[in-house]
Amino acid sequence: MPTLTDDLKTRILQAVDQGYAAQTELLAQLVRIPSQRGEEARAQDFMAAQYARRGYDVDRWRIDVDAIRGMPGFSPVAVSYDDAWNVVGVHRSRTQKGRSLILNGHIDVVPIGPRSQWSRDPYDPAIVDGWMYGRGAGDMKSGLVACMAALDALRGLGLQPAADVFLQSVVEEECTGNGALACLQRGYRADAAFIPEPLLPMLMRAQVGPMWFQVQVEGDPQHASAAFSGAGANAIHKAIFLIQAMDELETRWNGRKHEHTHFCNHPHPIRFNLGKIAGGDWPSSVPAWCTFDMRVAVYPGQSLEAARAEIEAFVAEAAARDPFLAQHPPKVIYHGFMAEGYELKDADEVEGVLRASHERVFGEPLREHATSAATDARFYGLYADTPAIVYGPECRMPHGYDEAVNLESVRKVTQTIALFIADWCGLEAYAA
Amino acid sequence: MPTLTDDLKTRILQAVDQGYAAQTELLAQLVRIPSQRGEEARAQDFMAAQYARRGYDVDRWRIDVDAIRGMPGFSPVAVSYDDAWNVVGVHRSRTQKGRSLILNGHIDVVPIGPRSQWSRDPYDPAIVDGWMYGRGAGDMKSGLVACMAALDALRGLGLQPAADVFLQSVVEEECTGNGALACLQRGYRADAAFIPEPLLPMLMRAQVGPMWFQVQVEGDPQHASAAFSGAGANAIHKAIFLIQAMDELETRWNGRKHEHTHFCNHPHPIRFNLGKIAGGDWPSSVPAWCTFDMRVAVYPGQSLEAARAEIEAFVAEAAARDPFLAQHPPKVIYHGFMAEGYELKDADEVEGVLRASHERVFGEPLREHATSAATDARFYGLYADTPAIVYGPECRMPHGYDEAVNLESVRKVTQTIALFIADWCGLEAYAA
Repeated sequence: MPTLTDDLKTRILQAVDQGYAAQTELLAQLVRIPSQRGEEARAQDFMAAQYARRGYDVDRWRIDVDAIRGMPGFSPVAVSYDDAWNVVGVHRSRTQKGRSLILNGHIDVVPIGPRSQWSRDPYDPAIVDGWMYGRGAGDMKSGLVACMAALDALRGLGLQPAADVFLQSVVEEECTGNGALACLQRGYRADAAFIPEPLLPMLMRAQVGPMWFQVQVEGDPQHASAAFSGAGANAIHKAIFLIQAMDELETRWNGRKHEHTHFCNHPHPIRFNLGKIAGGDWPSSVPAWCTFDMRVAVYPGQSLEAARAEIEAFVAEAAARDPFLAQHPPKVIYHGFMAEGYELKDADEVEGVLRASHERVFGEPLREHATSAATDARFYGLYADTPAIVYGPECRMPHGYDEAVNLESVRKVTQTIALFIADWCGLEAYAA
Repeated sequence: MPTLTDDLKTRILQAVDQGYAAQTELLAQLVRIPSQRGEEARAQDFMAAQYARRGYDVDRWRIDVDAIRGMPGFSPVAVSYDDAWNVVGVHRSRTQKGRSLILNGHIDVVPIGPRSQWSRDPYDPAIVDGWMYGRGAGDMKSGLVACMAALDALRGLGLQPAADVFLQSVVEEECTGNGALACLQRGYRADAAFIPEPLLPMLMRAQVGPMWFQVQVEGDPQHASAAFSGAGANAIHKAIFLIQAMDELETRWNGRKHEHTHFCNHPHPIRFNLGKIAGGDWPSSVPAWCTFDMRVAVYPGQSLEAARAEIEAFVAEAAARDPFLAQHPPKVIYHGFMAEGYELKDADEVEGVLRASHERVFGEPLREHATSAATDARFYGLYADTPAIVYGPECRMPHGYDEAVNLESVRKVTQTIALFIADWCGLEAYAA
């Protein structure tokens, strides 16, 4: 087993650099394949082909909702999984001397919003001033490609991990996490997981658990003129009444940050996002219905059941203040994220390896942070007793217009990942 | 030419009664044919067949937007007219001794809203306690059928109008009025028009002019967590800001009712209706866009151009109070109603005939009202110099759930229409 000498580390970093043009081109190819919810299959085919080309065993399967429904961490699903494919590329070590590793990334990207607001085609990546633009360029196709490229760099030196490595390209990270959950269901386990989400080259210490819910509001539809029976009750106005009431709950939940070690200094850990609204069928009818979708979040350790109960009670109390809503109570339903918060702990060993790798690349100590976003790390940490590292490149405007990833940060993060693999898994001679 | 003696009037009323069971069955058949926007063709086929069965010449044509676009009263169209058919059944008098008449009704109905809120299938009419339920039962299939039934009653006495009568079944009343406008474009003219809209058996003296507009609001979409660049700008919240500002404009416009003879005593003539809203693509993204549709209205005589300018200036001023909207001004676009208000005047002759007919049926003087709703009457009155009567049955919940029409009022209104035709057009012997 080759020793990870300083000289070898230098050669690994150089190997990443030598492969970086090809890695960037590979990332551009992947960004060109749209992979919003329901259309990820082609991008997954691409990943499967890339894994196969490198000689990894490829496991590609369609997510079976019934197989994961009963598992902890499952999020309710409102859409079809007919085209929801996971892909895992498996490196199996000959020597099995090191610690095994899951390298996980998600292939799904969020909707682009109005195309007209993008400076350029979101699926035709351009590189400007060291940033690659495109939906998913940062979140997180750069991470998916970086994992492959880190292993490519080792192989360029005639080396490969001395432990099993599972390259996971999963769907559903952006709405449920059921893709990562399906990897657990399929039996994938390792001594650690590493997820290069574009949350900066810092150790993510803790993340909140997002929850999606929809409030369904009724109205009393009548002729818009009120020339007939009366003015009815406008479901959209009633929804706005409830939406504005929700501010109070957001304030309440953020006020509890002081009970949570990793979030007490965060300016606003629990972001309530009014993400979607729809209501009414006809401008000249008083709207009969309105629904709105919110993304909220819970702290690590907080019970989802209690959070749901609090949301429902809050909505009911707010509704009770309106005479019509009191008689027509709104419904709260759940589809999409139903995620617990997650905190990385009791993970000195894996943290130490990351720390050393990062310092070697960046020349400065690894910083850490707690985030108001979430990642698939929770599945490994909470439900598989596997420490999960989240550490990745710098991204501008994930979920926004003109999303872009900083290519220099991708390069350095790839170097960190390569060193991390070499250190965590150990190395053995490459054998085709 | 038979004289309209009191005895003949009595026989006409009796003839309506004798045909009333068949008329009610015909109405039920028509209600069973859904005719929301874009699906009216089958109901129009039904009307064409009914007209043909009675020996009227049938004119059925698809509305040609290009042919009406330049006409006064045209409303901008955002949908396809591929299936927008008008049907006119024409009775041509042999003797031409009387005054010609347009009997107009609209076949289109508004959306039903959530089906679950209806007590029964909106397209399976049931009669309960003298009310026929169903979408369109009142608004206004009852009126369309009443016009046919009134002529049927005369024919049952061996009589027919001694002037041309045009039975118009038009589309697009509920969103633009372009169906009635297309009748004008096609050349239909008469000495009076009669529209049995379900605005009660009263003379409609004046109506407002509805206008639909859509406000398109941008956001700055980002990750819902605000974990990256910042919180972005939520297009739905920005839309709510503008929606709430609109209250002020509604108050301002209603305050002007004192300048309008027929509306100065109306409690709230100008109803602003927030009829539709849509925004956002993804609960975990800050919404990039939101649009909302409003129905407002102008008074008779008020300039539509000035109204549009006032709306646009108001939206711009409201937007200027928000730092983001000031930099990203919302757009106001128009599709659907762009209607002037209308007042029936200089119409003593036709009013007198209606008054006498109504009194004979109801045994009490005809009352009149001004309405915060609108009808196709404006086209005849404003653009064809033709007095247009709006007078019809009693309807519960037009545009609402469990729409229903009072069958006793339909019967009496049919009697009034029959007497009105006999008096206005005169009578001649029926000839097949």
